Formats: sequence, C-alpha cells, structure tokens
Amino acid sequence: MRYLITVEYFGRHFSGWQTQRNAPSIQQTLEEALSKLLQEKIILTGSGRTDKGVHAFAQKAHFDTESNVPMTRIPLAVNTLLPDDIRVTAIEERPIDFHAQYSAKRKTYLYKFYVSSISSPTRKYTHAQVIPPIDFEIMRQAAALLEGEHDFKAFCATGSIIKKTTRTLFRVELTRQADEIIMEVEGNGFLYNMVRIIAGTLVYAAKNKISLDDINQALVSGDRKKAGKTFPACGLYLKEVIYD
Amino acid sequence: MRYLITVEYFGRHFSGWQTQRNAPSIQQTLEEALSKLLQEKIILTGSGRTDKGVHAFAQKAHFDTESNVPMTRIPLAVNTLLPDDIRVTAIEERPIDFHAQYSAKRKTYLYKFYVSSISSPTRKYTHAQVIPPIDFEIMRQAAALLEGEHDFKAFCATGSIIKKTTRTLFRVELTRQADEIIMEVEGNGFLYNMVRIIAGTLVYAAKNKISLDDINQALVSGDRKKAGKTFPACGLYLKEVIYD
Repeated sequence: MRYLITVEYFGRHFSGWQTQRNAPSIQQTLEEALSKLLQEKIILTGSGRTDKGVHAFAQKAHFDTESNVPMTRIPLAVNTLLPDDIRVTAIEERPIDFHAQYSAKRKTYLYKFYVSSISSPTRKYTHAQVIPPIDFEIMRQAAALLEGEHDFKAFCATGSIIKKTTRTLFRVELTRQADEIIMEVEGNGFLYNMVRIIAGTLVYAAKNKISLDDINQALVSGDRKKAGKTFPACGLYLKEVIYD
Repeated sequence: MRYLITVEYFGRHFSGWQTQRNAPSIQQTLEEALSKLLQEKIILTGSGRTDKGVHAFAQKAHFDTESNVPMTRIPLAVNTLLPDDIRVTAIEERPIDFHAQYSAKRKTYLYKFYVSSISSPTRKYTHAQVIPPIDFEIMRQAAALLEGEHDFKAFCATGSIIKKTTRTLFRVELTRQADEIIMEVEGNGFLYNMVRIIAGTLVYAAKNKISLDDINQALVSGDRKKAGKTFPACGLYLKEVIYD
C-alpha cells in the first residue's frame, strides 16, 4: 500500500525536513515513529525539503507499507509517538505510481512579517521583523512583477546546482492587517530559498533599497545580487501541496 | 519623574508578572534592567498581574526615577538589557498622582482558540485547543450573557480573597476565521483567572457541557462549579489598558 500523509510542524527545533549535521530532522523523526508503529522500516518521500526552522501547516509525504494496521488509525497512533512539534493530520491511500514530489502540481507558501522598529516578543518565532518605514503600495507592485512564468535564477540561493530555473508563480499576494503583512505565494515549483529571497526582495522594494527596475533586471539577468536578501526561516510556512 | 511604560512579552518562560517560586518574573526582569540603566533602584507598579505563561501585547507599568537619562532613549536602551521575550515598546511621562493600576479605566484581553481534534504544532504556545464539534452560535449566545454588570464570583479562581466581585464587561466578542476563534473581552476590571474561566465557560457551552441556563445560574449564585474549567494560560493576551 502507498499512503500519502499530511504533516503539520513547528520547525524551530529541527534541522529541516531532511537530516543535516547534529539536529534531528522532521523526516527522520517521522520515519522512526512510523517504523515503530508499523513494525517495519518506513522510508518517507516528501513533497520537497523545507529548510531548518521553516514551518509547515500541511507538508505532504508518501510511504509504502505491508502493515495491516488500519489506515484510519495511523495518524492518532503515530502522533502518540511523535514530539508535539510534529503532527500527522491526515492520511489517504494513493496508487503505487503516485509520488509526493513528482506528482505535485502546485504549492502554496505563507510568509509572515510584522512591521515595527522594536522586535516583537509575541511573534519572535512565528514572524519576521520589518523595520519601518515601508511603502506598501510599492511592495504590492513588486509582488505583481513576480507573477507569471519567469526564470527565477536570481531568486535561488547561490551554489544551487539545479539547471532549470524557470517557474510559474500563479499568485504573489500581500495582505496587511494592523502591523502585520502576510505574503501568500502559489507556484508550480520553487527553487532553493526562493520564497525567502522573494520575501527579502519585496521588503527591499518597500524600503526603497532596490527599485522595481532592479527586480525586472533580476528576472532578466538572473543576477542574485539584484534581488533582496534571504529573509529568516521563522516567517515561512509551507501551506499547501496540490495534486491532480 | 513618574513614567508609564508599555511592555510586550511572551509569557512562556516566566512565572508571570509577579515573582513566584523558582522562575523569574516579568516585573523582576524589567526592574533589574531599568535599575541597571538608570543607576538607581527602580520599583515597577503594573496595571495588574498576569499569570504564569500569559502573554501581553501592551501591559502598562509606572515607576519613579531621579535619573537624567532622556525619556525617549529609555525604551531602546533598556531593550538591549532585556531578554528578547520582553520589550518596552513605549514610554510617557505621567503626573505623580497617576497609578498604573488604580488609574486604569478599562482593560482588553484576547483569548485565542483553534478548533481541531489534533493538537496543532504551529499554535502550541500561542493558542488553546478546542476539540470539535462545537456550536459556535451557542458560544456567541453564551458570550452575550456575560456582557454588562454582573457579580463574577463564579468566574474567579476559588481561594481568592477579594471581596467585591462585581465587574462590568463592555464586550465579549467572538470572531471566527477558518479553524480559529478569537475572544476579545473588554471590562472595567478582572478577577483572578476570570478571562480563562470565561474562555472555558464559553467552550463548555459550545460543546453542550453546560447550558445557557447554567451560565445565568453561575452569575446569580456565584457558584464556581456552574462555570466552565479554567482554560490554559498560553491562549491569553493582555491587549490594552486604557486610562482617562
């Protein structure tokens, strides 16, 4: 049987989805809990990696099992074996040719900012700080420039070895409420650090550190230096992975 | 000079506003930082205590000082001496007869819930969990019963020695967005644990564990057992203290 699980996690205490150096990873922690529950070695294939410190409302991962444990019992049972920073929130059966990464059609990420000259204790682990003043209208215009199909090479961490850097962003939406800004980005795929670099680029535009023309040039030239800095992991949430 | 400061804090790692047993308190941590900065012993008077684990967007406290440090420099300077769970966000001068607690006319608290049968890793320290199903309309009707002037003796932790338990609640508002419910309560004063007992009572009503008639009886009889349980500290935020 191939199962697809939905996983919520708070990324602060993990090395990210994938194991790195000394900190435990989400993937490894889940694999150990599932292996213990199902009494066989479980290998998870995620929809993609999330970096150290990044959160997920609904990461997706598939695994195969011969176990007879009824599917509907798995989430509740595995959650008792997991630290409370990780929860399996849903499970579905999928055909054997389904793949959590390659079958994904779209993904949605949220990035949460607050705008204040003083760091906010109540949002320290959940939002990224933006120092005022900012021009929200310019930020919106910058977001609009990124929508559509572009070569996002300038919005990819340097050193990444990926070759094809063209992606389509269906939405780069900004909503503001009181002193908070939520960015929601939906695309057909994302490069390494892409959402965090988009976040930094929109903030740089809003603060007049780069111009709208710089952003256009970043898209055309693929020059990482034309885009803004990589914003912190703590503001980033994988919100949704959409399959056919 | 008498100064009034506004303080934001994330309560998770503190014993509450006031020092208790082994954990450090918000008040003591602030007093030590202010004393160090102003080079004299500073005593803070808060607008009221908050319990262990309760957060504040804008707690208020006053203190007197002979220091010549310019007022406007105090927040930034003291923040460099504070752990990042506590930030002084504003300061104002006040007359010597002003009192952070006795001059307060109204306070507003927020209580954040999420409704899910699975505990939420991303909201573990910021919201309280409510297990579905709930009847949100009944919850709203229960909230409306508490508005106005009432004897809130049944909504006060047992063992409290306070004599006058009549308070006026100007608003007990519930808003729902996706799987979250925010309760906003504004009143002329609050008893010990009152907002957390109100939160528990509204949830009990929403889950049909108590009836609207039980809530009316709680208000009339002052019987703590007629109200719901005390909900967790992690969902509670002191939002605003209003002075004339």
